[in-house]
Amino acid sequence: MSLISNILSSRSKKDGNFFSAIQDIIGFKPKTIKPYERAFIHRSLNKKDEHGNALNYERLEFLGDAMLSSIIAAYLFDEVPEGNEGYLTKMRSKVVSRKHLNELGKDLNLLKFVKTNLPKEHFGENIHGNLFEALVGAIYLDRGYKYCEKFIYSRVIKPYVDIEQLEGKIISYKSLLIEWCQKEKKDFNYEIYEDTGKAENKHFAVKLWIDGKVVAKARATSKKKAEEKASKRSYYALQTHINTSH
Amino acid sequence: MSLISNILSSRSKKDGNFFSAIQDIIGFKPKTIKPYERAFIHRSLNKKDEHGNALNYERLEFLGDAMLSSIIAAYLFDEVPEGNEGYLTKMRSKVVSRKHLNELGKDLNLLKFVKTNLPKEHFGENIHGNLFEALVGAIYLDRGYKYCEKFIYSRVIKPYVDIEQLEGKIISYKSLLIEWCQKEKKDFNYEIYEDTGKAENKHFAVKLWIDGKVVAKARATSKKKAEEKASKRSYYALQTHINTSH
Repeated sequence: MSLISNILSSRSKKDGNFFSAIQDIIGFKPKTIKPYERAFIHRSLNKKDEHGNALNYERLEFLGDAMLSSIIAAYLFDEVPEGNEGYLTKMRSKVVSRKHLNELGKDLNLLKFVKTNLPKEHFGENIHGNLFEALVGAIYLDRGYKYCEKFIYSRVIKPYVDIEQLEGKIISYKSLLIEWCQKEKKDFNYEIYEDTGKAENKHFAVKLWIDGKVVAKARATSKKKAEEKASKRSYYALQTHINTSH
Repeated sequence: MSLISNILSSRSKKDGNFFSAIQDIIGFKPKTIKPYERAFIHRSLNKKDEHGNALNYERLEFLGDAMLSSIIAAYLFDEVPEGNEGYLTKMRSKVVSRKHLNELGKDLNLLKFVKTNLPKEHFGENIHGNLFEALVGAIYLDRGYKYCEKFIYSRVIKPYVDIEQLEGKIISYKSLLIEWCQKEKKDFNYEIYEDTGKAENKHFAVKLWIDGKVVAKARATSKKKAEEKASKRSYYALQTHINTSH
């Protein structure tokens, strides 16, 4: 292979990696990769487009934030028919809170795609949420509202939005479960192991044992989340027991 | 005609009136009229749906507000490629300001559809904007995001959103024009007459005369707006003159 074809093939492999990494994250094929590239250009690079306008992800944050807000609004409107305007507004602000967006961006490990002059240690927590918003904005530009909705359903609502928990009725399923086990004098054990599988990010799996039996399994990007998921599953599985014992 | 068929025909005429009035306002046929009916039910009626949930327009306001924000965001993102995140945020809040939404609702004369126990004099200015938001929410429920976009483009963006004016670069085209006429010692006259045409709301038409010639015509729902529109048109028509005379 000549030097040039070597360079060409390594370049296209590099682009291909980004393309397929994005595809993995968003769950469908990008039509055009440009907006996604922009979603990871930090202002420190001082890039400009052909008209001299700043080329970085900050405007995409604005767009993504707007899409996120309206998609979550429509979801809550459907999901909580008994909630009034004030309730819906409050719940939405919990879902799209800075803290929550940072978590989402971190879970997807978006920081590793960022192009910047600065050392990555330089960035605070908020970059994770900002990148997440910018990614949503890029999806909107690439595929429109419907695909934004699809992405937000599968990556935000399904895995993270639990109305009961957001309402503060249930702070933590884990503490609920532990309380019950202690009251009922049952042994319990959260067995945790790393299980990254084919995913690029670190994943943890947990088996929740109660009285020598596995009552639930779960997998997530942090130990805490995996435990919470498993607790929630066993909570619903054991609900009749738990409720009658109160 | 029997009494019953009389009643039936008057009822269907009444529904038909609402249906076609809504169609006139939104610019396309509703698929289902229910959301639009809800968009005009005031809480004072204390209506409930079959599950006992409050049935009035307040939740639709939440939904409409969210759609409006994201559609205006996407519009500004496209329209002002040189604007940064802060600029876009500021411009959007001008477009969806309470004052502006109230104006929009008032121009469409939405108040006349409201079903309430209270005398309409009871309501303050904000009901106009609230009804406008609720109407947008109803469009979303009935026809989805695309039609919301269509409505907002034709009823909000095209007639009302003038980036230059929003930026405060141009406060009023009328004052700009008058200033120019005075400086250039030209006679001018805004000839105003009522011209409601086939529209349900009052409309005003204006002819702007400068030195004995009609330089622009416009039509709008208030005298002030019609004058502003005509001034803007003549401003662009006369722009070379105006700029060279400065």
